[in-house]
Parts: sequence; structure tokens; C-alpha cells
Amino acid sequence: MAGGTRELTVDLGERSYPIYIGSGLIARTGEIFSERGFPVKSPILLVTDSSVVDLYAAKVEEALATAGYAVTTVVVPSGETSKSLEMLDELVGAALEAGLDRKSTIIALGGGVVGDLAGFVAASYMRGVRFVQIPTTILAHDSSVGGKVAVNHRLAKNIIGAFHQPEFVLYDLDTLASLPLREVRAGLSEVIKHGLIWNEEFVAWCDANAEGLLALEPEALGYALYEGCKVKSIVVSRDERENDLRAILNLGHTIGHALEAVAGYGELLHGEAIAIGMVGSARLAARFGYSAHIAAETERIFRKFGLPVRIPASCETDAIMSAMLHDKKFSEGQMVFVVPTAIGSVEIRNDVPSSWVREIVDGLREGN
Amino acid sequence: MAGGTRELTVDLGERSYPIYIGSGLIARTGEIFSERGFPVKSPILLVTDSSVVDLYAAKVEEALATAGYAVTTVVVPSGETSKSLEMLDELVGAALEAGLDRKSTIIALGGGVVGDLAGFVAASYMRGVRFVQIPTTILAHDSSVGGKVAVNHRLAKNIIGAFHQPEFVLYDLDTLASLPLREVRAGLSEVIKHGLIWNEEFVAWCDANAEGLLALEPEALGYALYEGCKVKSIVVSRDERENDLRAILNLGHTIGHALEAVAGYGELLHGEAIAIGMVGSARLAARFGYSAHIAAETERIFRKFGLPVRIPASCETDAIMSAMLHDKKFSEGQMVFVVPTAIGSVEIRNDVPSSWVREIVDGLREGN
Repeated sequence: MAGGTRELTVDLGERSYPIYIGSGLIARTGEIFSERGFPVKSPILLVTDSSVVDLYAAKVEEALATAGYAVTTVVVPSGETSKSLEMLDELVGAALEAGLDRKSTIIALGGGVVGDLAGFVAASYMRGVRFVQIPTTILAHDSSVGGKVAVNHRLAKNIIGAFHQPEFVLYDLDTLASLPLREVRAGLSEVIKHGLIWNEEFVAWCDANAEGLLALEPEALGYALYEGCKVKSIVVSRDERENDLRAILNLGHTIGHALEAVAGYGELLHGEAIAIGMVGSARLAARFGYSAHIAAETERIFRKFGLPVRIPASCETDAIMSAMLHDKKFSEGQMVFVVPTAIGSVEIRNDVPSSWVREIVDGLREGN
Repeated sequence: MAGGTRELTVDLGERSYPIYIGSGLIARTGEIFSERGFPVKSPILLVTDSSVVDLYAAKVEEALATAGYAVTTVVVPSGETSKSLEMLDELVGAALEAGLDRKSTIIALGGGVVGDLAGFVAASYMRGVRFVQIPTTILAHDSSVGGKVAVNHRLAKNIIGAFHQPEFVLYDLDTLASLPLREVRAGLSEVIKHGLIWNEEFVAWCDANAEGLLALEPEALGYALYEGCKVKSIVVSRDERENDLRAILNLGHTIGHALEAVAGYGELLHGEAIAIGMVGSARLAARFGYSAHIAAETERIFRKFGLPVRIPASCETDAIMSAMLHDKKFSEGQMVFVVPTAIGSVEIRNDVPSSWVREIVDGLREGN
């Protein structure tokens, strides 16, 4: 890869793959396909959404066409509702009409929704074809690494899915320039989360570089995404199918998912909801006897990034508790939480009394 | 396992699993769940179809309940149309309502349709839960081994699926007693196919025991299913994801699938269509210089089992050729066939001229 491009390998044995992070990478998509031996005879399906298509799809198509690949682009509506079986049905139809065979590739160009949807199409079309991720949001640095793909059911999010690793992830920093500030902040919430679970030094670096990150300075952003992806890839390498360790990636997600559900999807961005959730987990840590400093620091850093650290008044405690108890993370009815033991390390507790959780949720209401 | 029960292991490393074949096995379902350490706290979903539910579902439920398991039964309409994304949606809803968690099990009780559908639900629900097969047809001895699961799309059969191996296969010979003779014959077609691709001695045994097999004599049937499953499991062990060797299992399927499609699904049973296809493949073998005896023997044996060996007059050659060229087996547009080189062994040819195929299809019409 060219100067300025960072490269990282997700180590999964025969399913290992690289993540490329840098500027101007989309223009090199076709070149990378050739270098990596993707067969020219097998058509490619490019899946993107209505908010991304006009910005970058033509560039990807052109890069692939120049290298001799036939590509068909399909645009799905922007937003979570596209993660449906109906859309799977439509995309499989498009793949068949475009003549995709077992050696074909499906590319996701967009954020987490497009990645999850196109990834599940790639996992299930002909029982699995090649998959490539070209994320266009900061948040997708998380979802594009690790192979978790899924669509939603009316009764539950991400309930129909697979583990299907991409062939590579192409992270073109230029695509992030168009992100609204609120999405930048929310995306950085997951980046910081990767520091909080694994790497104290990286948390300190984020803290010191908040201004540059929020201004999307390419050097700072490239480094932060590299470090964030690195934590994710180390964890995924050690536990591909989420048997144990991978659960630590859910720091802040138990409360966060409940807040998203109760607030109504879209009211709180995912990164905002988990920022509040991470403050909650840090307060749980204090109940388990870990330093109160963890919660104070967690809150201070998220405030610095302009992220919410309090539960909106519209979300009732009862509704939040009820949403949590229905969350699939409570295997066999037990309450399980990822709890920080210091800045940069966590443990999984399966002995969390729901009364503690309720107190902490109450204490996190706006005004407290 | 008790006396009279045959046991076979499909060797797939950490995904290895046993196949139990014998009489009275359904009554022991709960016992086997306990012995194999399936958690009692995690609810089970039993998927069956309208033609099987009244015969055996209560027995499975009772056996599981006696061992302490909570089981919810869902009945889908009998027939290929149940292999749909709509039915996947419904079954995932049923699984959620029944409280299935990541340690839960989905059981397929029925023939190939139920196995394919329930298997894909098990593969994708929460990105994969345990799966158990209780086949109730002879044909399902084929589909229940090897982990290929899928649903259909309006444009193509089995196009949305996964490789998802069961935890075990429970083959209760008592369930086969209710099969209509035509289905017995068609099921035995796949059994004989396993001999034709791998085991000459077993073909001779089938030939000598045709009467007992057609009369469903338990000892003969148990042995035949054991040998058929054994060939399938050896092939699957060596090529789980159908990269190369596994393709030999498709003997007779290229012409067979085309005949099913052109005749209209349900007109020709799968086993009937592939019997005709296997005669066609044996005739191709002669064109490649192998002994004409192969085709004569193949035809003689299938006739002995009362299976069709000629293409129905209603199926036009052009339509058959066109269906074959759209078959997913023709990667990158080449014509690929599994061709016998002797009784009990085959090779994969990717150099089959379509003119030869057309001549053979013409020569297989009724009256020739």
C-alpha cells in the first residue's frame, strides 16, 4: 500500500484479512481486486444506500471497471429499516439477475446498515460468496471488522444473521469528510470504547487529540481508526464466534441498546446511547469496589467529545429495565454486564443484581 | 446405542457428529439430548410439516418433556413452497416467542424440505444455534447429512442458505413405514446413487436386495441407509464446503434438476428425476470412451427398483437444455458433469460439449 496508508491484519487463520486505512483508497479498489486475485469473469454486486450512492458509488464502479470487472450497483433506502428479509430477497434477486456465481463478490459501500445487510446477503447467497467492506462512517470501523452480519426481525434487532468475514476492508478517510458533526461524535464513541476495554494509552491519546479528531484531521483520524480497529481485531481473532472474550466489545451496550429501543430508534444515535451506557457500566464498577475515578474519567472524556452522558427525561426507568431483560445478552435469564476494572481493561460479570442496575439508571437521569 | 442401532460419525473435526440409525429411536430423543449435554434451561423449537406432525411430533415432544426439556412445535405446510424467506421470518418469530436463546436447539422432524428450512433457521437465528435432524423419509438420508441448508428464491432453488452441521441425526426406521411406494422408490434412487459414485459392492448388494428394500424390511433398510450415509459422510468430511470432491454427489443432478424444473416441480419426484439423470450421465461416460456396460447396468438397476429411466414426452429438449445452462453448477458458463468411469466410481468433467448433452437428452426421450 502507498505511503500514508495504514494496514492491519485480522488474524483468523485461513479467514485472515487486511484492513487498509488511508486517503484516496477508493480509486484503487480495482487494483486491489486484481492484486488479490478476484476473478474478472465473476460479476460483482455493489450494495450502497440512498445517502451514499451519489457521493462514492461512481468512483468504486469506475475503479472496478478500469480493472476489467463487471459491477452492478443496487441502492437500498438509507436507515435501519433496510436490514430486513424483504431487502435480502430483493438483493438476492439482483444478484441472480446480474449473474453472480460462486466466485463473485458482494461489496458493502456505506455505514453499518449497508455492511450488515450486504454482509448477510454475501453469507447466504449460494451459501456464501466473497464479501468486501468499504465503510463510509466512523462508526463502521467497528461493524466492518469481525464478520458479524445480520438483518432485523420485527421482534428483535440483528436476530437473523451469520459470522461471515470480509476478504478485506477498505477504509477511505476521504469518505468521512461529508459526515455531520453529530455522527462524527457518535462514531468516535465506539473508537473510545475500544480504548476503554483494552488500551489505556490510546484513551489518553484520544483525550489529548479530541480537537483534531472532531475536526477530522486525516492523520489523527487515520491513527484513531487504526488503533480502534486493532483492538477489535485482536479481540475477534481470539474469539471469532463470540463464545467468551468477544463479549467485552459490548461495554456500554446493555444499557445502550435499551436506551435506543426505549427512545425510539433514531432518536439517540448508537454511539450516543453507548456513551451513556459506558458511564453506567463505570458506575457499576464502583459498586463492585473498583475506583470511582473510572466513572469520573469516562464521563469527563465523553463530555469533551460532546457526547451525552445522561439518560433523556423521556426514557422511563421501568421501560429501560424491561428492555434490558428482553435483550438477547441475558442468556438463561441472568444479568450480565461488561464492567471496567480500570481505564483500559474490563471484566465480564454475570452476577449483577438488577437492583444495582435500576439505581444506576435512576442516577443517570438528566438533572442528576 | 441399543442393539440393532447402527451408528456412524461424520468426521468434521470440532463439528463432527453422529448419525444413529435404528428402530424405536424417537422415543429416546430426550435421553440423547441429556447424554449429549444439551442444556435443559434453553427451550427447544421443533419444526415439522403438516404431513408428519400427527404421526410423530407428539412422540418427540413426549420424549423431550420426560427428560425435562421445554419444547415448542411449529408446523409448516408440507411441500417445497415452505422453503421461503416468509417461512424463515415466521419461524424466527416463533423462536423468539418461545424464548430460544443462544444455547437452544432447533429440531427438524420431517423430510428434506423441513430439514433445509429448519436448518437455515438454526444457521441464522442469533447467528447460529444447535440443530438436530430427525428425518422421516428415505430421501432425507441424503439431505440430513452434510450441513447444506437453504430456502428458495422465486428465481432459483436453494439459493439462500448456509453450511450448518447438525449436532446429531436420529434416523428412526419406524417412521419410514408410512411412506407411499413411489416415495420409497424415489428415496432409494439417492441411496443407489451413493453406491454408484463410491462403492461397487454396495451397488451389487442393492441389486440383490431390491425386493427387501422396496418392502421396507428393517434390517435391509437400516443397512442401506447406513451405507448411503457413510458414502455421503466420507465425501462431506473431505470437502465440507463443496470446493471440489463434494461435487461428485451431484451425479445425475444436472439433468435431474433441469427435468424437475421443466416438468414442473412435484411432477417428477427428485429421486425419479436423478435416476433419469444418472442414466444420462452413464451414456455421457460412453461418449468419453468408458464402457457402455455402465449405462446398461445403471438403467437395469433403476428399472428393477421401478424408477423411470426415460424423459417424459412433455419435457422439450430445448427447455431442458436451457434449464441446464441456467443451473448454478455452470460456474462461469462452462458445462460440467459428473461422469461415471465404472460402477462405483466417477470423475468430474468440465469439458462436456453441449452438443453431446443435447444428443443424450434426445436419446432419453420416451419411446427411445
